[in-house]
Amino acid sequence: MNAEKIPDIIITRLPVYLRALQRMADQGVKTTSSQELGEHVGISAAQIRKDISQFGEFGKQGTGYSISYLLDKLREILKVDRLWDVIIVGAGDMGHALARYQGFVNRGFNVVMIFDNDKSKIGQKIGDITVEDTADMIERVKVSGIKIAMLTIPASVAQETTDQLVKAGVKAILNYAPISLNVPDDVKVQYIDPATHLQKMTYYL
Amino acid sequence: MNAEKIPDIIITRLPVYLRALQRMADQGVKTTSSQELGEHVGISAAQIRKDISQFGEFGKQGTGYSISYLLDKLREILKVDRLWDVIIVGAGDMGHALARYQGFVNRGFNVVMIFDNDKSKIGQKIGDITVEDTADMIERVKVSGIKIAMLTIPASVAQETTDQLVKAGVKAILNYAPISLNVPDDVKVQYIDPATHLQKMTYYL
Repeated sequence: MNAEKIPDIIITRLPVYLRALQRMADQGVKTTSSQELGEHVGISAAQIRKDISQFGEFGKQGTGYSISYLLDKLREILKVDRLWDVIIVGAGDMGHALARYQGFVNRGFNVVMIFDNDKSKIGQKIGDITVEDTADMIERVKVSGIKIAMLTIPASVAQETTDQLVKAGVKAILNYAPISLNVPDDVKVQYIDPATHLQKMTYYL
Repeated sequence: MNAEKIPDIIITRLPVYLRALQRMADQGVKTTSSQELGEHVGISAAQIRKDISQFGEFGKQGTGYSISYLLDKLREILKVDRLWDVIIVGAGDMGHALARYQGFVNRGFNVVMIFDNDKSKIGQKIGDITVEDTADMIERVKVSGIKIAMLTIPASVAQETTDQLVKAGVKAILNYAPISLNVPDDVKVQYIDPATHLQKMTYYL
């Protein structure tokens, strides 16, 4: 397996397969086919077979895929066979919702710190985590070697905060701020902006 | 302009242009170029010119684009030159965060109802909106002619709720539940799942 050669578009589909397979496993299902998986995720069986074959020969003609084996492989490929420490920057409504979200740990992520620059929020407890001062963020992230951050801050401060995080060693940012971020080539950004997502659909209404 | 001919991939980029142009307008900027816009959104100037030219001749060589004119055109194309009523299904942490989110109205969306099946939540106020019983959802959505829903419910009930919404006439669903949904061809779904988004980046770490 040559990691460098896998197209980005395939990588974006693998977490969707992983999620569907995990759900089937939770329901006690042991094996599946590309047809069945395709029905769950809305992707053609041919595409699924092609995507998965990039990483080796997982299925057998006629018997289908072993779900637990495929889960292990996908987790290994996506590097979520481990638990990544993640920080949240911004302790507003969205920061709170993410901090309390139960769906991270069993998918590879552990929220370990939350930062805000609002004095009234610093020191607050969200679940087990105490909100810390953004002024301490660079140092805390550097020392802890944290690579992943979720931004739930206003657009007006998102680029500046991103620059600080990148300087501190962060390599992956999930950005809830409604603004595009400029980052170096070795830093990945994913965007979550509900209004943008809705606007991708209104065109068709 | 022939709406049928515009590829989906272009439609997904237009809301990102719209957001960046809105931000420039808010800062008092009057004109921009494909180069400048490209730097803001991380897309090449050539791609931007090609995307925008699908809808007509908006820019002039040398003088660039009028931001207000382009904003008007993009809003018209994406049909967010009006205000769409939207419902939220699920009054948990994420439902609360979305209900209180300030960024919808100036981008074309108005949250008008929130539903939950938890008796302890029904009747609760979130901002100006009172949480209603999911049992009344189909009727309320039908009568109001609502076309857009945001789902912040557990995966286990997401498909069943989607089927009900589709029956009630909903044509666009923003799904926060961590599961792929099956919908008819004339219904659009966009997915927001933070763990999936994070898993698209860990591969590269």
